[in-house]
Amino acid sequence: MTRFDPETLTFNEQGLLPVIAQDHESGEVLMLAWMNAEAVARTLETRKVTYWSRSRQAFWVKGETSGHVQELVDLRVDCDRDCLLAVVRQAGPACHTNRRVCFYTSVKDGVEIEMMAPEA
Amino acid sequence: MTRFDPETLTFNEQGLLPVIAQDHESGEVLMLAWMNAEAVARTLETRKVTYWSRSRQAFWVKGETSGHVQELVDLRVDCDRDCLLAVVRQAGPACHTNRRVCFYTSVKDGVEIEMMAPEA
Repeated sequence: MTRFDPETLTFNEQGLLPVIAQDHESGEVLMLAWMNAEAVARTLETRKVTYWSRSRQAFWVKGETSGHVQELVDLRVDCDRDCLLAVVRQAGPACHTNRRVCFYTSVKDGVEIEMMAPEA
Repeated sequence: MTRFDPETLTFNEQGLLPVIAQDHESGEVLMLAWMNAEAVARTLETRKVTYWSRSRQAFWVKGETSGHVQELVDLRVDCDRDCLLAVVRQAGPACHTNRRVCFYTSVKDGVEIEMMAPEA
């Protein structure tokens, strides 16, 4: 048994790694965002998925203002330890455009197709 | 209708963006790797998912040597245009450790648990 230490993950030059959020029930890929070691620790401690906002250079408790929180169901580490998969219970839409997921644009025959409307 | 041009995506300082590969049938998140604009174009043209290997600094046609190819089913762009989701038909295990997916380690109660054995 290996105790998990966020500091043993591999971070990029900015001290960040990409985190994929996936819905625990539907399996949908909701979004990708970034964490530093402290965000990983806070996510595990609070079970509220907490990213590092690159634009604001601050911790970002997902849904803190919108209410669209991500409750952590499982956190998984990849083979290279430089990427995480957060399996979550998503409240409301995951995307800041109010769509269920961020990946709502599909490339079909060289054209961008919007697959999903914002929720009401 | 917007024609899709890989050059309109947002790449990092190395000219790369993260790409999530998801199994088209099971919905499993298989792996995360990186593409530059030319890798995105090659993936769309050949329908064989083609990453940029950061360690080898070369194009990496997934499965070219192992046979564990990823046939592109759908390519999706996220709201910020700085991340892609490749929905794929995966031949064999996706992970270089011969496991079905790269995210085979779960963090449970502060301990790392291996959830999946290498395939025979």
